[in-house]
Amino acid sequence: MGTTQLESVPEPKYWHLKTVLTEALDSEFSVGEILPNERDLAARFGVARATLRQALEQLELEGRLQRRRGVGTTVAPPRVGVAVGSEQHAWPGAADDAWQPVDCTTAVPPAGVADHLETDPDEQVHIVRRSRVTHGQPVAAELLYVPGSSVPALSAIDAPSGAARARAVLRELQHMELEGQAQSVELGSAGAADAKELDRLPGAPVLVVTTRFYAEGRTAAVSVATYRADTCRLTFGDSGRVEIHHDPERRAS
Amino acid sequence: MGTTQLESVPEPKYWHLKTVLTEALDSEFSVGEILPNERDLAARFGVARATLRQALEQLELEGRLQRRRGVGTTVAPPRVGVAVGSEQHAWPGAADDAWQPVDCTTAVPPAGVADHLETDPDEQVHIVRRSRVTHGQPVAAELLYVPGSSVPALSAIDAPSGAARARAVLRELQHMELEGQAQSVELGSAGAADAKELDRLPGAPVLVVTTRFYAEGRTAAVSVATYRADTCRLTFGDSGRVEIHHDPERRAS
Repeated sequence: MGTTQLESVPEPKYWHLKTVLTEALDSEFSVGEILPNERDLAARFGVARATLRQALEQLELEGRLQRRRGVGTTVAPPRVGVAVGSEQHAWPGAADDAWQPVDCTTAVPPAGVADHLETDPDEQVHIVRRSRVTHGQPVAAELLYVPGSSVPALSAIDAPSGAARARAVLRELQHMELEGQAQSVELGSAGAADAKELDRLPGAPVLVVTTRFYAEGRTAAVSVATYRADTCRLTFGDSGRVEIHHDPERRAS
Repeated sequence: MGTTQLESVPEPKYWHLKTVLTEALDSEFSVGEILPNERDLAARFGVARATLRQALEQLELEGRLQRRRGVGTTVAPPRVGVAVGSEQHAWPGAADDAWQPVDCTTAVPPAGVADHLETDPDEQVHIVRRSRVTHGQPVAAELLYVPGSSVPALSAIDAPSGAARARAVLRELQHMELEGQAQSVELGSAGAADAKELDRLPGAPVLVVTTRFYAEGRTAAVSVATYRADTCRLTFGDSGRVEIHHDPERRAS
């Protein structure tokens, strides 16, 4: 997908190798299996180590291979579809939320977030940290930015910190009527904290999903969620408006 | 965004450099400006070339820098928000469609697409190639897979090939009632043809958006669109359901 060639376009050498390697992965290797080392692989396919490495990097980008420190290169399981769509249309922390609150701090948000929230440049906001686990694997880490004006009744006494504080902020947020939300997805790289939480090396490519929650005519909260790009396929279904006569996911991977 | 550090997590050296470089980009360089060469930059910041290169790679992933062959490393303009959401809820090629038909061929689709379309393993389908241009820049390339059963009245005589053929396929598709669509986003790498169309090097990271169009109780067409990950931020607004009392994009970048 996204890797189609037209016959008229010249193919770089590693690209052909990638195709050959993909076929070998399909036919000879099973998920989780460790690949032979680079020298053996280069010899088998009759290519230079640099060409092999380029092809392996492509396959890693496409989620076919995983490179883990101390383990080597393994065949990756198929990417997991993770629902990100706004069809739920609910505040973070509502029932059926896939996210677990981890912590809550207070700090000045990044400039882009402050812009959305229309807070003053040095205004501190609540930052709820949450994590999302699918099939026992951490798939995403989130920072939810909530200005004080969105949770005016929040008491500092009940739960001053930690996951309890995070839950208190989320609970207060529910008091506003959610008017809408807008999402964007872009490529990013995992920061040190995200990388640790997602079991990746710092700088690994991630998919950054930014969600703006609208209430009382303004952006009442901003969520910045970092998804593992190697294992996740983000799904944006509008299942609410789809009338399917049979289950379309039945044959999908 | 997605690059937050917690104080307790040790930072790799290039990560700190990245932060310093980001500040320098903000304060000293303007969009499109060419950065000094790697040796000079490494000397200025007192780091090894390898560390510098890691930091530059991160900044490229995050869309702050662009590396172009023959030009060097330049400061990238802010990413462009490209609407991808299914709120339009229309067949490809409907009025206001952002895509331009380029070509149309007939071939066996990739296995994943054939799975969705429930076509036979060796069944050929129409493949419409389209491109999307925003602000004069190519931002995405699409392959739209349409099985013969979705366009039964298509005549082979009127327009046997090219953009005219593509338009004929899209026109026939409109005859079915669209029942819904589902989308997913994942990381991929640009194939040779996509890379050429998007003015990127083969293997560059791309965001692959797969859209399934449902009609007559099945998947009637599948679109695989490849967006430049360096310049695009994909937006999934549910503007139809949002009641905003002022324009939320006013202050957004």
